[in-house]
Amino acid sequence: MERHFEHDLEELKERLLWMAGLAERAVHQAVQAVFQKDEALATRVLDEEKAINEMQIEIDDRVMQLVALQQPMAVDLRFILSASRINNDLERIGDQAVNIAQSALRILRHPQVKPYVDLPRMSELAEGMVRDSLNSLVRRDAELAKSVLVRDDQVDNLRDQIFRELLTYMMENSAVIYPAFELVLITKNLERIGDHATNIAEDVIYMVAGRDVRHLAADRR
Amino acid sequence: MERHFEHDLEELKERLLWMAGLAERAVHQAVQAVFQKDEALATRVLDEEKAINEMQIEIDDRVMQLVALQQPMAVDLRFILSASRINNDLERIGDQAVNIAQSALRILRHPQVKPYVDLPRMSELAEGMVRDSLNSLVRRDAELAKSVLVRDDQVDNLRDQIFRELLTYMMENSAVIYPAFELVLITKNLERIGDHATNIAEDVIYMVAGRDVRHLAADRR
Repeated sequence: MERHFEHDLEELKERLLWMAGLAERAVHQAVQAVFQKDEALATRVLDEEKAINEMQIEIDDRVMQLVALQQPMAVDLRFILSASRINNDLERIGDQAVNIAQSALRILRHPQVKPYVDLPRMSELAEGMVRDSLNSLVRRDAELAKSVLVRDDQVDNLRDQIFRELLTYMMENSAVIYPAFELVLITKNLERIGDHATNIAEDVIYMVAGRDVRHLAADRR
Repeated sequence: MERHFEHDLEELKERLLWMAGLAERAVHQAVQAVFQKDEALATRVLDEEKAINEMQIEIDDRVMQLVALQQPMAVDLRFILSASRINNDLERIGDQAVNIAQSALRILRHPQVKPYVDLPRMSELAEGMVRDSLNSLVRRDAELAKSVLVRDDQVDNLRDQIFRELLTYMMENSAVIYPAFELVLITKNLERIGDHATNIAEDVIYMVAGRDVRHLAADRR
């Protein structure tokens, strides 16, 4: 029985990692579709959303069954409830990738506002946060999780910088207002991806340390 | 023991409602601060965030204890896990109210872009969705919950309409670009509040009908 339970927990973790891989890939493809004006790539992100949604339901079913059948205690329960929340955050990351892919399809029709410099930096940061929040879960590494929290401030700073720059462009040349507006939406999506990675990292710290850091981070923001 | 458990579940539900009241009030005050250019009201929203955050942690502790000590089965477990997710959504609604209050403080310094017509409609819709998602929980009313899902489409339509209008204003007069940009952010915040209410309604339908409607709604969006 005990060994069976350990096996189920391990499987749950593997599913989460698989789902994280799908979500991360979706984000990467969506932003590349924007930068490379690649319509086919954007469309692929829209097509692949289904797999993420199905995985979310499968993971939730596993969580329900683990809690109902195994009646886990303390440490295991904390992991399982965190897994349920992380599952949710990963699905939302997939939603944000879909939003970015939709912006990519719209922005294709317009001339490029400016060379993309800060936006790729922001997307790399956000993708790295997603990756490391899951790495911190696998390794039960609270320090790595904390580094994700720190990077969320960097993402927010980049967002403010990009907003200021886009506002300047809009004020100088009303012809770019429409595509600049799409870039505002994409920036907001990347910000939210960073927020979800931060939620995951907070869950990992809670799991490892048994300490709730959520509103320490929220107050800091 | 059984009666004690029922009592605990009832208390959990009451805490959720209390928290929902705080979140709804925060949203209402934040948008009123924008419409009435009321700096003191915006500041009050920022001050009151702490109460929402503390309530979230209290509810999560109750959830953990209920699952760990009572080992609930089937229907009760479904309620408790939903309560945990709803708790999360309510806290995020509070975060969005804070964002709106911060926009209110910034937008005060600028002349008003245009008479507020669609934005109050959108905020009333979003506030009503939050209220009714919780009402549907209390009454276990899946029909009311479904009406929240329908209203989410209306919120998204209003968002698109407001965006189009703001883009037009920005293109006509670059002097309003900055305050119009703040209105874009506020519109995005209201959209997210609608999304969170939709999550709550989906949880209620799942709880009442035992059926997962999440990706029916997500695909529809």
